Amino acid sequence: MRTAAALIIGNELLTGKIADANVLVLARALRLLGVQLKRVVMVLDDIDVIAQEVRALSSSHDWLFTSGGVGPTHDDVTIDAVALAFGAKVISSAPMEQMLRDAYGDKLTEGHLLMARIPEGARLASNAKMPWPTVVMKNVWVLPGVPEIFQAKLPLIRDELGADQPFVSHAVFTTLDEGTLKPMLDSVVAAHPDIEIGSYPRWSGLEYRTKLTFDGLDPARVQAARDAFAASLPEGAVVRVE
Amino acid sequence: MRTAAALIIGNELLTGKIADANVLVLARALRLLGVQLKRVVMVLDDIDVIAQEVRALSSSHDWLFTSGGVGPTHDDVTIDAVALAFGAKVISSAPMEQMLRDAYGDKLTEGHLLMARIPEGARLASNAKMPWPTVVMKNVWVLPGVPEIFQAKLPLIRDELGADQPFVSHAVFTTLDEGTLKPMLDSVVAAHPDIEIGSYPRWSGLEYRTKLTFDGLDPARVQAARDAFAASLPEGAVVRVE
Repeated sequence: MRTAAALIIGNELLTGKIADANVLVLARALRLLGVQLKRVVMVLDDIDVIAQEVRALSSSHDWLFTSGGVGPTHDDVTIDAVALAFGAKVISSAPMEQMLRDAYGDKLTEGHLLMARIPEGARLASNAKMPWPTVVMKNVWVLPGVPEIFQAKLPLIRDELGADQPFVSHAVFTTLDEGTLKPMLDSVVAAHPDIEIGSYPRWSGLEYRTKLTFDGLDPARVQAARDAFAASLPEGAVVRVE
Repeated sequence: MRTAAALIIGNELLTGKIADANVLVLARALRLLGVQLKRVVMVLDDIDVIAQEVRALSSSHDWLFTSGGVGPTHDDVTIDAVALAFGAKVISSAPMEQMLRDAYGDKLTEGHLLMARIPEGARLASNAKMPWPTVVMKNVWVLPGVPEIFQAKLPLIRDELGADQPFVSHAVFTTLDEGTLKPMLDSVVAAHPDIEIGSYPRWSGLEYRTKLTFDGLDPARVQAARDAFAASLPEGAVVRVE
């Protein structure tokens, strides 16, 4: 199975100024490609910490996606950290410099030109809809933290990674609590080792008590696990099946 | 400075079924206590991976807070993982068993009793508002993933950790982009090495282009950094100061 990790960078997240919005959309996009997101690490704007995580996560997963720290200010250290992780120099990309000159014209500053910095050896990924390049260093995709732009890059990732069989997900919503439904659940888990089964109690709301999820790559097997579980519940305990 | 890490556990997060809601509230609570949240790691429901992270994060931070995986079903492996991390056995807590017997009465199942499992040597933290105990193993707080309950545990953490000087945060909102404001920002960063300064461009909206944040433990120093930056901007470039 193809695997991925995400490295979410930024003091603003760990100091509670904003909530991360990128893990959810990345996770969903990867599910549709059949890629398993195995680990997310969130760190401060610290070049050494970022470099160490880039090295560790990129070597233990097929892809690493970083989010944040790619602007021109002092707290944007992701490009330097990725370069450091791979022992590469940071250089200025001629095509990116040209795009910045075209975009800013007379108003161009030295600050703006810092946005053309890339690790030596990185390639630039882009498509017609997303002309500003995305820096890809080996298997590391360097993405911006701003959620609107992060999200706009996902189709590019999809095109480059290509879709395997997507993960399929089904669910059963029940009136039973986890302690009560556990024996039925354990039977289905034991009989469907290839299906990833999750149990999520609901704390508030009256519609249901527990949501059970069934995920896997083979649609028929996922559906069979879901149906076997629903059939094992007592009369009236199934609120809804998805 | 006192430090903390968070370990966010659950397939539902890494498969994009739900967005984490606990990092933000934990980060904010810790800021008010003057505790620096340095790292967040999000992993699947895998006992060995969780145990390894518990060992690493608890030894490198003053506190580790885990979120998720504490129910009675097959995908709830946090208690076992925390026990494994410290080479402890898992035992059933007599007071928690009694509370479960009282709560469920006739409807009690073996499944419910699994919620009394704790690592041997753990202590139980509770207060009048939160009678159901929170398991604390050495410096590891084992918290539930359900956001309403996670949030309800924060006052207990606040009482136990105690408040140092809280972090103070101010902000300047400006019409300038990051490339343009960089020289002014660099001056203020150089003159205020004790202040954590962040720069956040806004992608959409017309009110401002970049938000600058100034954080630290000394209120006067934080305010001085903010005011020095605001004063260095050209006429009309400051939209608002907080």
